[in-house]
Amino acid sequence: MISNSEIKLITSLQQKKYRALHESFVAEGEKLIRDLWLSGMIATHLFTTSEVSDTPIDPVVINERALHKISSLKNANGWLAVFRMPEPKPIPVSGLILALDGVRDPGNLGTILRLCDWYGVGHVVCSCDTVDLYNPKVVQASMGSIARVQLHYQDLPQLLADDHRPVFGAFLEGTPIQKTQLPSDAILVMGSEAHGLRSEVSQVIEQAITIARNSESSGAESLNVAMATGIILHEWFRG
Amino acid sequence: MISNSEIKLITSLQQKKYRALHESFVAEGEKLIRDLWLSGMIATHLFTTSEVSDTPIDPVVINERALHKISSLKNANGWLAVFRMPEPKPIPVSGLILALDGVRDPGNLGTILRLCDWYGVGHVVCSCDTVDLYNPKVVQASMGSIARVQLHYQDLPQLLADDHRPVFGAFLEGTPIQKTQLPSDAILVMGSEAHGLRSEVSQVIEQAITIARNSESSGAESLNVAMATGIILHEWFRG
Repeated sequence: MISNSEIKLITSLQQKKYRALHESFVAEGEKLIRDLWLSGMIATHLFTTSEVSDTPIDPVVINERALHKISSLKNANGWLAVFRMPEPKPIPVSGLILALDGVRDPGNLGTILRLCDWYGVGHVVCSCDTVDLYNPKVVQASMGSIARVQLHYQDLPQLLADDHRPVFGAFLEGTPIQKTQLPSDAILVMGSEAHGLRSEVSQVIEQAITIARNSESSGAESLNVAMATGIILHEWFRG
Repeated sequence: MISNSEIKLITSLQQKKYRALHESFVAEGEKLIRDLWLSGMIATHLFTTSEVSDTPIDPVVINERALHKISSLKNANGWLAVFRMPEPKPIPVSGLILALDGVRDPGNLGTILRLCDWYGVGHVVCSCDTVDLYNPKVVQASMGSIARVQLHYQDLPQLLADDHRPVFGAFLEGTPIQKTQLPSDAILVMGSEAHGLRSEVSQVIEQAITIARNSESSGAESLNVAMATGIILHEWFRG
């Protein structure tokens, strides 16, 4: 049985202000929930539509209708858990840091988190208008990578100005990445597809890099920000 | 004014069988429609919610409510056109051809078309169960690249066996792409994220390639098929 106060709590977590208030977020689906546990995240509530075992906390078994009520998915899939937001870790002073300027699309942020996880980039700094990490769509799209990649929401121009690492920015015009020295200690800044990098951010970029297109013909105007991030990270760690 | 028979025609084009019957498909939004015209595609109908000029065919001005009725988008955006499917061109005998095995997600196919357009890959061969090119979601996600990249739906194992080019396939285990000779004449086969490559397709792969992850830690299990395609195409044309 799920109580009315639990329904109210869980649906409120679809909004950022209540996630911040309760320092909690929702994840759905057995695979994702188990993945978050394996990565050390702590759940406070677990609801499932059938009896399950081997879970760190006992599930509350509810029917499909009740799950549908608390789910943010079009097709709820049997498991829903509330997790505590982990304690933030500080930004490391060495290594590659990714910075995102105004990435609003939750699917893009989720994909970028998977990429960072794949390439071992542990920290991402986001401008304050970047979509919230614990937005349900980001959580689902990240497929568990949110447990392994740390996001920091900060005043981006300030952070870039203060950090000692060289700052690289992706533009439509710049040095092709394969012709650029990509040092292991650096900050890579990616802008939103719609607006590119803001001028306050552009001003502190030390090296403009680009993904060269192959074709001379009038082709696609741009790649989306997640795709561009993937190609640049591949180049960074290519060896 | 839009007629009832036009409404019936246009909404029927959301289904593949009617697109095939009428050899027509729908595109929405001024930017996309103008892009398709610029690439030589021919529209038979144009509906807009305000008067417009500089269009190859005269628009029929309709109200928002009528547009909403014929649109497949949640937020219809002022322009909707019906285009004739272009005549298929033959698969060229040289160059890089991309082959897709069972890619079902329209967004992924649209993104892959943009990538091919960016890198100048003009032809993509798809297994017959790959999502239809003229599916409204593919058309919108491709952002005009459908006019410049030709898709062929064929018996994939047969085509791969018959073609003289070396066949490369992307797997989770294989030679890292940066350590592979990637010839300018080749076929690159990508599988669906959910199922990978089918065994009939795997059997004709001559070289298994992979995108190496950087991190030793337990990170993301895979990249999505569009991302993997982007990284591999970048490497192919890296020079």
